[in-house]
Amino acid sequence: MNSAGAAVDPLPTSVYAERMSRARTLMEEKGIDLLLLSLGLDLPYISGYHAMPLERLTMLVVPRHGEARMVVPRMEAARVTPQPGVFELLPWGETENPVEIVARLARDSGATGEVAVGDQMWARFLVELLPLLPGAHYRRDDVVTSMRMTKDAAEIAALRAAGAAVDRIAAQLQAGDIPLVGRTEAAVSADLSERIIAEGHQVTNFAIVAAGANAASPHHHASERVIRRDEIVLCDFGGTMNGYCSDITRCVYLGTPPAEVADAYAVLREAQQAALQAGTVGTPCEEVDRVARGIIAEAGYGEYFFHRTGHGIGMDAHEDPYMVEGNSMPLAAGHAFSVEPGIYLEGKWGMRLEDIVVAADDGPQAMNVANHDLVCLDV
Amino acid sequence: MNSAGAAVDPLPTSVYAERMSRARTLMEEKGIDLLLLSLGLDLPYISGYHAMPLERLTMLVVPRHGEARMVVPRMEAARVTPQPGVFELLPWGETENPVEIVARLARDSGATGEVAVGDQMWARFLVELLPLLPGAHYRRDDVVTSMRMTKDAAEIAALRAAGAAVDRIAAQLQAGDIPLVGRTEAAVSADLSERIIAEGHQVTNFAIVAAGANAASPHHHASERVIRRDEIVLCDFGGTMNGYCSDITRCVYLGTPPAEVADAYAVLREAQQAALQAGTVGTPCEEVDRVARGIIAEAGYGEYFFHRTGHGIGMDAHEDPYMVEGNSMPLAAGHAFSVEPGIYLEGKWGMRLEDIVVAADDGPQAMNVANHDLVCLDV
Repeated sequence: MNSAGAAVDPLPTSVYAERMSRARTLMEEKGIDLLLLSLGLDLPYISGYHAMPLERLTMLVVPRHGEARMVVPRMEAARVTPQPGVFELLPWGETENPVEIVARLARDSGATGEVAVGDQMWARFLVELLPLLPGAHYRRDDVVTSMRMTKDAAEIAALRAAGAAVDRIAAQLQAGDIPLVGRTEAAVSADLSERIIAEGHQVTNFAIVAAGANAASPHHHASERVIRRDEIVLCDFGGTMNGYCSDITRCVYLGTPPAEVADAYAVLREAQQAALQAGTVGTPCEEVDRVARGIIAEAGYGEYFFHRTGHGIGMDAHEDPYMVEGNSMPLAAGHAFSVEPGIYLEGKWGMRLEDIVVAADDGPQAMNVANHDLVCLDV
Repeated sequence: MNSAGAAVDPLPTSVYAERMSRARTLMEEKGIDLLLLSLGLDLPYISGYHAMPLERLTMLVVPRHGEARMVVPRMEAARVTPQPGVFELLPWGETENPVEIVARLARDSGATGEVAVGDQMWARFLVELLPLLPGAHYRRDDVVTSMRMTKDAAEIAALRAAGAAVDRIAAQLQAGDIPLVGRTEAAVSADLSERIIAEGHQVTNFAIVAAGANAASPHHHASERVIRRDEIVLCDFGGTMNGYCSDITRCVYLGTPPAEVADAYAVLREAQQAALQAGTVGTPCEEVDRVARGIIAEAGYGEYFFHRTGHGIGMDAHEDPYMVEGNSMPLAAGHAFSVEPGIYLEGKWGMRLEDIVVAADDGPQAMNVANHDLVCLDV
């Protein structure tokens, strides 16, 4: 079913075996007795299998000591590619209670103390588990999420390819090859979505198109509003290509921008480039945010930049680490994240500029290199 | 963003006000102090708003006594259509902890005892909430889910329209208008997906195409396997139209089926029709399952029908009530569900026959009326 997301072919078993081995080491270090993964991309990262987002539970149960088991509905068992040595398959039948099976596996391996739970598991399964493992203490999975944060060479190559694909679309936008004036935001969004696929992604994740005052709502849903001359158009779009995500934002101006817009954009661009350059190994994530925010505040737009500067990206469009005040974690080589400050004047206009960057020992590596100007289209 | 699902325009505020009022009555009856809704369709059912499936928490907080609050990321607040008298908006900023806000709302209204949690909320938010509400007892939300089970006239009309749309596609399949032989399962699946949209759905939810032995895996993922003459092709497909789901399964045979297949299909058809007719008001859900299973077992295929007979359907493709052994809940007028027994011989072939049915005072109302035969295509 399509709802399993952009499933890709599993990697060789050796990759999952190595990841599982690292996960077990981390569980030992962090004092985690039991790791439970279900929906979300932690499961395919470590096992190659995407759980179906349905009421029938799929859960990888990893006790600190003992075999990992993939608890899966019997009727979906044939979908799972076996990964010998990584996990054993444990299909359950329609009249069994899969949460009781998970609890029994936990008890049988004495793994009922510190339990790490995958972020996107449905709460209903945790609610059902709570009374079955009395005394357990729950925490968010910081094992696989922390592993996923640091991308290896193949993952960085995948991010780079996805970034290059959306760069090509940004270039089309900036060249005036994507008609804007007279079309609705929704029509342009659909156009961008098609181009995302045409440029090699398997899935479009989002294609925000926000014109004029709509651009002041950062997560604006593309509407039936018709795009006009003499306004800004903000396009924030991305997809998943071979399992890894792209995400880029560029704005164009349909005509000659008033001084207020041009001046604000100059500030935005300076802030974005400075924050991008600040993304060096060892720098705390919040420092990347502070650099962008400082420049924008200094220019008097502080109150109009009300979201964090960036989010991690990889298999998920949003994942750790987040570039936000309060996150003092230092960047490490292989951390991939967006740098996307914005300035939003409610009722007037909004603007955002976004690239994906990977921290590396020789400095930040930009996955996007599309023109950073506020390109003015002569319409 | 597209990941919010097939969002539809909100209904009039009076609809949500009435639903919220009923929910509060149910909370009183069930002794629930606090209702928490986030991802999933319970939230739009009661508020008109689809939460974005992202790491920034959106949560409707409904204390038994006190105002409901929609806790929403500030940058997404503009997406929420206000519903005066139903909920108040409570936007949170990027450096705030939204789970702490939820916990504070709960404590401020003394709603920290019995907490009902929406099924599809991300587990991470429940994990974060656990230590903030010590002594709380958690349960699955049986308030909104039970309300959603019983469809009103408008909802039944929506299910009927969606059913008619997939019936038209089934007729195309059975007329031989959808090429099969020589195409891959994946190509036919993509074809069905396009037809689902062309017939009026906004979203394709799934389009299973399984040929020959692949049909023995009920959740088979359409593959690059080429469809050949002299095999069965199972097609199970559906989408969401104006907020409500369709779901139908029909099989065709490419040539003349061997006696084994024809005989099994006759049993399957009898079982499916009998189970459908058994779906009367007051009948326990498990009885619908038993009727289908009894006929299939009687014919000697019992071990080859290893999934439940059906699932509820509405805004979700799968929702309460489930037609499965152990569910003794009696059907009520307005309950909508699938009746879809199957027979699966691993390595050989599989077959399933599925309609959507709504229980009504004057008997089961079928939402699908496409030909129930194993149509044999002369190829």
